[in-house]
Amino acid sequence: MALLNDDRLFPADETTRAIARRLYQGIRALPIVSPHGHTQASWFARNEPFPDPVKLFVQPDHYVFRMLYSQGVTLEELEIGKDHIENPRKVWRTFAKHYYLFRGTPTRLWLDYAFQELFGLTDRLSAANADHYYDVIAAKLATPEFLPRALFEKFNIEVLATTDSPLDYLADHQAIRSSRWKGRIVPTFRPDPVVDPQSPGFADNVRALGALTGEDTFSWRGYLRALQTRREFFKSLGATATDHGHPTALTEDLGETSAAELFEQVIKGTAYAADLEIFRGQMLTEMARMSVEDGLVMQIHPGSVRNHNAHLFARYGRDMGADIPAPTNYVEALRPLLNRFGNERNLTIILFTLDETTYSRELAPLAGHYPCLRLGPPWWFHDSAEGMRRFRQMATETAGFYNTVGFNDDTRAFLSIPARHDVARRIDAAFLAELVADHRLEEDEAADVARELTVGLVRKAYKL
Amino acid sequence: MALLNDDRLFPADETTRAIARRLYQGIRALPIVSPHGHTQASWFARNEPFPDPVKLFVQPDHYVFRMLYSQGVTLEELEIGKDHIENPRKVWRTFAKHYYLFRGTPTRLWLDYAFQELFGLTDRLSAANADHYYDVIAAKLATPEFLPRALFEKFNIEVLATTDSPLDYLADHQAIRSSRWKGRIVPTFRPDPVVDPQSPGFADNVRALGALTGEDTFSWRGYLRALQTRREFFKSLGATATDHGHPTALTEDLGETSAAELFEQVIKGTAYAADLEIFRGQMLTEMARMSVEDGLVMQIHPGSVRNHNAHLFARYGRDMGADIPAPTNYVEALRPLLNRFGNERNLTIILFTLDETTYSRELAPLAGHYPCLRLGPPWWFHDSAEGMRRFRQMATETAGFYNTVGFNDDTRAFLSIPARHDVARRIDAAFLAELVADHRLEEDEAADVARELTVGLVRKAYKL
Amino acid sequence: MALLNDDRLFPADETTRAIARRLYQGIRALPIVSPHGHTQASWFARNEPFPDPVKLFVQPDHYVFRMLYSQGVTLEELEIGKDHIENPRKVWRTFAKHYYLFRGTPTRLWLDYAFQELFGLTDRLSAANADHYYDVIAAKLATPEFLPRALFEKFNIEVLATTDSPLDYLADHQAIRSSRWKGRIVPTFRPDPVVDPQSPGFADNVRALGALTGEDTFSWRGYLRALQTRREFFKSLGATATDHGHPTALTEDLGETSAAELFEQVIKGTAYAADLEIFRGQMLTEMARMSVEDGLVMQIHPGSVRNHNAHLFARYGRDMGADIPAPTNYVEALRPLLNRFGNERNLTIILFTLDETTYSRELAPLAGHYPCLRLGPPWWFHDSAEGMRRFRQMATETAGFYNTVGFNDDTRAFLSIPARHDVARRIDAAFLAELVADHRLEEDEAADVARELTVGLVRKAYKL
Repeated sequence: MALLNDDRLFPADETTRAIARRLYQGIRALPIVSPHGHTQASWFARNEPFPDPVKLFVQPDHYVFRMLYSQGVTLEELEIGKDHIENPRKVWRTFAKHYYLFRGTPTRLWLDYAFQELFGLTDRLSAANADHYYDVIAAKLATPEFLPRALFEKFNIEVLATTDSPLDYLADHQAIRSSRWKGRIVPTFRPDPVVDPQSPGFADNVRALGALTGEDTFSWRGYLRALQTRREFFKSLGATATDHGHPTALTEDLGETSAAELFEQVIKGTAYAADLEIFRGQMLTEMARMSVEDGLVMQIHPGSVRNHNAHLFARYGRDMGADIPAPTNYVEALRPLLNRFGNERNLTIILFTLDETTYSRELAPLAGHYPCLRLGPPWWFHDSAEGMRRFRQMATETAGFYNTVGFNDDTRAFLSIPARHDVARRIDAAFLAELVADHRLEEDEAADVARELTVGLVRKAYKL
Repeated sequence: MALLNDDRLFPADETTRAIARRLYQGIRALPIVSPHGHTQASWFARNEPFPDPVKLFVQPDHYVFRMLYSQGVTLEELEIGKDHIENPRKVWRTFAKHYYLFRGTPTRLWLDYAFQELFGLTDRLSAANADHYYDVIAAKLATPEFLPRALFEKFNIEVLATTDSPLDYLADHQAIRSSRWKGRIVPTFRPDPVVDPQSPGFADNVRALGALTGEDTFSWRGYLRALQTRREFFKSLGATATDHGHPTALTEDLGETSAAELFEQVIKGTAYAADLEIFRGQMLTEMARMSVEDGLVMQIHPGSVRNHNAHLFARYGRDMGADIPAPTNYVEALRPLLNRFGNERNLTIILFTLDETTYSRELAPLAGHYPCLRLGPPWWFHDSAEGMRRFRQMATETAGFYNTVGFNDDTRAFLSIPARHDVARRIDAAFLAELVADHRLEEDEAADVARELTVGLVRKAYKL
Repeated sequence: MALLNDDRLFPADETTRAIARRLYQGIRALPIVSPHGHTQASWFARNEPFPDPVKLFVQPDHYVFRMLYSQGVTLEELEIGKDHIENPRKVWRTFAKHYYLFRGTPTRLWLDYAFQELFGLTDRLSAANADHYYDVIAAKLATPEFLPRALFEKFNIEVLATTDSPLDYLADHQAIRSSRWKGRIVPTFRPDPVVDPQSPGFADNVRALGALTGEDTFSWRGYLRALQTRREFFKSLGATATDHGHPTALTEDLGETSAAELFEQVIKGTAYAADLEIFRGQMLTEMARMSVEDGLVMQIHPGSVRNHNAHLFARYGRDMGADIPAPTNYVEALRPLLNRFGNERNLTIILFTLDETTYSRELAPLAGHYPCLRLGPPWWFHDSAEGMRRFRQMATETAGFYNTVGFNDDTRAFLSIPARHDVARRIDAAFLAELVADHRLEEDEAADVARELTVGLVRKAYKL
C-alpha cells in the first residue's frame, strides 16, 4: 500500500496522462528554487533537530489548525500558542482523528508526501495508527538525516529565501554565510513594520530604524535614506527582493512636499485612516523608485483582511487562520506607480492576488503589456491543484507563460517544501499535456516551457 | 429510445466514468433529505390530485417561463398569473414548440427526468408530440399513484421542509401531524415579512405579529419577544431552521439603545433607506442571538436584486423571473455578527450566494475557519451541473467537504425534486471520481464522502 | 510536418473527440458571417495588394506587439507608429525571434493558421526561418490571389461589417456598392465620437455632425435629429447595427427637460466629470429609443480602461495595447434603459463584457429574461479557446444557446478572420461534444445547435 500514486494529479485520459508523465520526468529532479517563503534562517544557522511531530506539523501550520477549528476542535485542545506542548501525543491523536477533514485539500497532498517520502509511512493517518505515526516521526527527527542542513541538501534546494523585518540584524544569515556550509539562504526585505502605520508598534519601529541606521527617521528624507541603507544591508547578505503585504494594491505618486507633509502627520499619529492608506500607497511607489536604483525585485501581496476573528485575535494574536481575502482592484490602484515607473526596463514587480477574478480581467492584461510586471504564482488559499489550474487557464492566453515567474512555496512548514514544489510541477505538466493533447503546443515546446516554469523563469525574475 | 441515459453527467473518460458509476450506485437509492424548499404543506394536508400539466410544469416554474419570455413568448400566451387556465392545451403546445430552447440547461434535465421516470414518456418533447404528452400527463395525474402523499412516498423523502411566514398559522402542518400519515414535513421560519421594512405591508405585518403573540410589537422589546414566541411555535411543529432573504449579507451589532431607537424610526416610517439596510443587518444579528438560545439553524440567502423588470412587476407582481443576482460581499458584511457569535459552538449559519466569485475568495476561507459557518449548496441559477462542479472545484480545497451541507432542491416544483437530487448525486459522484482518478483520494474515502454529501452532512447541519 | 493538426482544440477523450469531429464537419465549410470587426472598407474599394509582412502581421496587431513590449522589446525596434517601415525585415526577425512568447495564446493559433493555410508554411516560425517566412509571405502578397477581394471570396465571407464614425462619408462603402463586385460589406454606426464628451475633439465632432446634416447640433433636438439622420444614412448603405464603447454600462433615463439641460452643459464644456458619465448613459437610452424606431441592433461594449499607460499614450496615442479591463456592473447600470425599453419586441441589444464574472452572475440571468437582450461572444482578451469555453460553461445553463449570437472576429487583421472563426467553430463543437458525451444533449440536437451558433443565430440577431 502507498499514500502516493506515481500518476497523481495527472489527467485521467490515458493519452494525455502519458504526455504529462513524460513532461514531468523532464522536470521532476530539477533543483528547488524557493524565492519566497517563511522558514527561519535560525534553523540552518544552528542546525539543531526539529522538535516533536506536533511542533512540526500542527502548531505552525494555520492550514491545519484552521480546518480543525472550523469543525469544533478548540485551540486549547491543540495547545496552540504555547511555547511548550504539554501533551503532544494527545494533540497528535486529535489531529489524526480528524485527518479525514482534509480530504480533497492540498494539505492532505502535502502531508501524505512528507509522511511517505520522508518518514516511510504508507498507511493513511487515522485514530488507529496515530501513535505509530507519532513514534516513527519522533524517532526519525532525532537522527542526523533529519537535521535542517541535511534536509536542505536532501531536498535539492538551490536557493531558499526567508522573509525578514527591516529591523532584523540578520545575524542568522550572517552566521550561515560565515559557516562552512554552502547552502544558499537569502533574506527578503519586507518593510511593512516601518512603512505601514497600522503595523503594531509602528512609531517604535521607525525609531528603531533610525537607531539602526544613524538617520533621523522622523524626517521624510532621513526616513527614506534609512530605508535605502537597510535595503543595501539586505543586499549585502544576498537579498534580491522586497515584499509588501498591504491591505490593497493602492499606489500613490505625491509630490515631494505633499509626501513629506503626509509623513509628518503619519509619524505624529495625527493622520486620518484614509491618509494611512495613501501613505502606504506612496511608500509602494517610493519602494519602486529605490528598486529602479538598487535592482531589488518588488513583490506585492495585497488583498487579505487580517485578523477577521476579533475574539481569537484578542486571545492569541495574529496568524490564527482568520485572515480572509477580499475583492482587490489592480487597474486603478497601480496606475500612479505604473505611470511613473511602468516602462522602466530595470524594474521587476511581481504581482500576487487572493482574488482570482483578477487573473483574466486585470492581472494578465497588465502583465501582458507593462515591461516591469510579472505574475506571481497562485497564492495561499489558491496554492492548490485546482487553484493552479485556474491560474494557468485564466492567465496564459493573455499574459503567456513568460510573464509568470514559476512557483513560490510561501511556507513556514519546511518539511512541506518538496511536496509543494512537486504539486506545482505535476499541475504544470498536466496543464501543458492538455495543450499538447489538443494540439495547441508541440511536445518539444511543452518540455521547454516546463523547464522554464520550474527553474528558468524564477531564476530570471528574482535574479537568483 | 429514452430521454435519460444511465451514465448521464458522468465524466467521459472511461476509467473515471466507471469510478463515478460505482460511487453513484452507493448513493442512488438513499432517501431524499430536503431541508429547504418551497412546496406547499397544503398539498400534503389535503392530498388532492395535482391539476393539469400546465399548472404543474409551466405556470409555477419561473425557470421555464423566463426562458420562453426571453425569446419573445408573451406571458399572456402562457396565461401566467391566472388562477384558472383557459386553454391549457394551447399553452402546453406553445411550451412544447419551444422546448428546444432548454437545450444545455438544467430545466431540460429536470423535465426529461419527470417525463420519463414519472410519466413513462420517452420521446423528446416537441410540437409534434405535445398533445400526446398532455394527454398522458393529464391522465396519470388523475390516478391515486399521483396524489401528493403517494408521490412523497414514491420519492423516498425522509423529510421535506417548507418555507413559511412568521405570521402563518401553520394549519396545514398541524393537519399533517394530526393525520395518520407519517410523512415528515416541517416548516421553516422565514421572518422577512416582519424584519425587512421594505417588505410589502411591513407595518401591518408587525401589527399582525403583535396580535398573534399578545406582545406590543411596536416596542423593541415586545417585538423581539414576539419573534422569539413565533420561533418557539415553529419549533413545536418540527422546524429546525430559519431563512433570511436579504438584499445583502450586511450584519450590524448596535447596542440595545441604538437598536431600540432605530426600530422606533423604522416602525414609524421615518427612517432613511440606508437605515433600513442597517435595520435588516441588526435583525440578522438578533436572529443569530436567538439561534444561540433556541438552536434553530440560520440560512442566509443574500444578493438577489428583486423585480428588476418594473413593467412586469407592475402588471404581474413578484417572482416573474426578473430577479437578477448582484455582486455580494461577505467578509466585511458578516463581521459584526461573527465578532459577536462567530465562535459559538451551538450556532450553525449556512451561507448561500448568487455571486460565484465569492466561493474561493470569501466563503470557503470563512467557512474553513469559523466553527458556526457552513456553505450551502449552489443556489438558484447555479443549481446546475456546471454550477455544482464550479462550487466543488472552488470551495473544496479551502473549506473541505465537511463544511458543506449537502443539497437543497429549493423548489416550488414538487415533481422535480427527485430529478434535482439525482443531478446533485451524479455531479458529486463525478467530482469525487475525478479526485480518485487522479489519486487525490482513495475510492473507499470517496464512497464515504459521497454518502456524507447525500445524507450525512444535511442531517447534521440542519439537525434533522 | 505541419503547424496545424486536424484535431486541434478537440477534447482529448477519444469518444468525445469523435463526436466533436462529426459536429465540426457539419459546420466547417459554412460561410463566414462577420457582423462586427475593424477591417477597412478601403481595402475592398481599392483592391490593392496588402503591403509587406510587418505591415500585415505586426504593426496593426496590438495582441502581437503588446506581448513583445511586455518582454522588453521596444516599440522603436518594432517601428510601431511609422507610416513607412524602414527596415521591415529587421522588424520581422525581431518578431520571429520572440515567437515562442505566444505559446499557449490565441495569437499563436491564429498566426499558425494563416501561415499554413494561406502561405503554405509548415515549419514553426523562429529566428532560423524568419527570412524564409518573410520572402514567402512577401512574394505571395504580390499575387492576384492575395488581393483583398480574392481573399474575401476565398474566405467564403457572406457578409463583413466594418465599424465607422457617424462623421464618415462611407465613400468606400459607396464605391464597393457601385462596383461590379458582389462582396457584401456593411458599415456599423459607432457614435462614440459625437456622444462621448471625453472623445478627442468632441465639440468639433458635434459641429461637423451639424454641417453634415444641416441640423443645429448645439440644440438638444437638432442634435438628436442629426443622429437619426446619420443612422438612416448608414442604413441606406446596408448597416444593420450600432456599436457603443462606453467606459461603463451605465444608462440613464432623464426627462426631456433634464436631458436638454445636461446636453447644454456638456456642449458648453461646463459639465462635471460625473455628469459626462450620466450623459453617456442618457445617450445609450436615446440610441435604444431610435433603435426601437429604425430597427438598428445595438451592441454595447463596456468596461475597458483605455490608454492605461500614460507615457505610451503621450508618445504614440491610442490602441497601443494598454487598454485594461475593469470590473463592470450590468444589473443596476442597465436598469433605466431596460425599464424603458426592455420589453420591446422589436429591439435587440447585444451585451459584451471584459469582466467574465458577470457571465453567470448578471449577463446570463438578464439575457435569460429580457426579450431584447442577447449575449455577444467572448470579447477581446477572452476571444480565446479557454475564454470561449468559460463563456459557454457559465452562460449556457441560465441563458441557453438561443440567447447568444454566434461569433464576432472583431479584428483589424483581415488575414486572421478564417482562423478566428475556425477556433470558435472548434470550441463550440468541443463544448457540444461534451454535452453529448455525458448525455445532456443528443447528437442530432448538438448538430442543429452547432449550425445555429455558426450562422443561424448571428444572421437573426444582426438581421443579416
